[in-house]
Amino acid sequence: MTQRLATIVVDGGTAAALVDGDAVSLLGYRDAGDALRSAPIDRLDQARTGDERSISDVVFAPVVPNPSKIVCVGLNYRDHVLEMGRELPAAPTCFAKFSAALIGATDNIEIPPVEVSDAVDWEVELCVVIGSPVRNATAAEAIASIAGYTIMNDISMRDWQTRTIQFLAGKTWEHCTPVGPGIVPVSELGDGSGLAVSCDVNGVNKQASNTDELVFNAVDLVQDLSKVFTLEPGDLIATGTPGGVGAGRDPKEFLKNGDVVTTTIEGIGTLRNTCVQTSI
Amino acid sequence: MTQRLATIVVDGGTAAALVDGDAVSLLGYRDAGDALRSAPIDRLDQARTGDERSISDVVFAPVVPNPSKIVCVGLNYRDHVLEMGRELPAAPTCFAKFSAALIGATDNIEIPPVEVSDAVDWEVELCVVIGSPVRNATAAEAIASIAGYTIMNDISMRDWQTRTIQFLAGKTWEHCTPVGPGIVPVSELGDGSGLAVSCDVNGVNKQASNTDELVFNAVDLVQDLSKVFTLEPGDLIATGTPGGVGAGRDPKEFLKNGDVVTTTIEGIGTLRNTCVQTSI
Repeated sequence: MTQRLATIVVDGGTAAALVDGDAVSLLGYRDAGDALRSAPIDRLDQARTGDERSISDVVFAPVVPNPSKIVCVGLNYRDHVLEMGRELPAAPTCFAKFSAALIGATDNIEIPPVEVSDAVDWEVELCVVIGSPVRNATAAEAIASIAGYTIMNDISMRDWQTRTIQFLAGKTWEHCTPVGPGIVPVSELGDGSGLAVSCDVNGVNKQASNTDELVFNAVDLVQDLSKVFTLEPGDLIATGTPGGVGAGRDPKEFLKNGDVVTTTIEGIGTLRNTCVQTSI
Repeated sequence: MTQRLATIVVDGGTAAALVDGDAVSLLGYRDAGDALRSAPIDRLDQARTGDERSISDVVFAPVVPNPSKIVCVGLNYRDHVLEMGRELPAAPTCFAKFSAALIGATDNIEIPPVEVSDAVDWEVELCVVIGSPVRNATAAEAIASIAGYTIMNDISMRDWQTRTIQFLAGKTWEHCTPVGPGIVPVSELGDGSGLAVSCDVNGVNKQASNTDELVFNAVDLVQDLSKVFTLEPGDLIATGTPGGVGAGRDPKEFLKNGDVVTTTIEGIGTLRNTCVQTSI
């Protein structure tokens, strides 16, 4: 198993770190995005500061706390699209999320009071992390631009998402989107195919699929989006979610205060986040 | 006329500046966003560096080059909604733009080759600039959080905007969205109502309306969006565009290499940008 690049909470802010099993080595960068803007993911050993910690003593921050772009993709799992009776899309359905939405791998999901939203839903997603700038990428340039992969749960306020034809307002609620715990290098996961993805709520499985079902995989998405803009180091592309979300169930199920959401991707790890209702 | 807060190009980057008629006074901040994060817009005089220039000698950068959030609003002019036979919306239609899209008030709009997009369109928009952090704002808190107003032309690749149900891919093309030239303080423009807005292409008027026609005005939008997240200093809210866009004409009209787009809002100023076809 190769090392993972993470961002951990330290006094006064955050630090990038390499995680190897239980060992956490701090790097001389503010966070994983800062590290990726400075050096390739497989050349970060030289930036070790000598500050070594045990994984049980660290708290993970959002793995890239402040990406220049967070793109999320909808309707991108073949099994889910077909079970809904829809046709496979010809282009990826892309929308944005702001970095203020991001939280760490074990942080609380700060859900709003029920009178503000009573339709908070889960979405396990494989998340691509860009490692080097790329524009109008070929397939080879696309894979070369990817640093690695992490996990995002694209927590969605369905009532806000569907109040108009544009999803943004339901997709970027502050302090609601866990991302992490670490970035697994592309050298280990290739194009990110063949990975089991799942989401449990209070220990009950709700979503279970495999990234083989992606209509547009990591390489396709980098090629497509890099026509529109330059993808930069630390940019995140959340590749979409399979079936099993709360809004698709009969009866519908949504997250409430105290619920524990466990989001797992094979070969990457697990996010474990508790929903805590907060005032806004 | 009060001073406007701008961002100008200097050796090695950008600097915030106060513009008073033809006089430009540089401030000790990297850009207008940096300035707004440091002091209220009406307290920036004390940050003058003594570097004074003439407006004919300066080039404007995107007025906030790197906002933490750029929110755009669709379907927000009453006259345009009604002429399209639609009902007035109950909530604002919000989508995002990434800061890599932004250009300065006289920069070239870098349109893609026609085989990539042949549907590049114009959209004059009054743009709210946030001055102080605000969450879940009352109307009074909303107006108090606004630093002022600037102009955005939300240049849109209609073919990319409508390829799926989400607008993002057509709304955030790199180096295509002029914003500026300066920020006119809220003390001068109030809630931004009563301002004539217009867009000309090659000297021919295409859009002409007034911000009195906004369905959701600046205060409404700050109140709404601040439920979802904290609006931060330098954040931009583009309030939508009136009728007269190229896609709504018969026959449709789109921008091509060499076209000059002139975007004007009463009391704020003018953006003047030339379309230059570039490879991507």
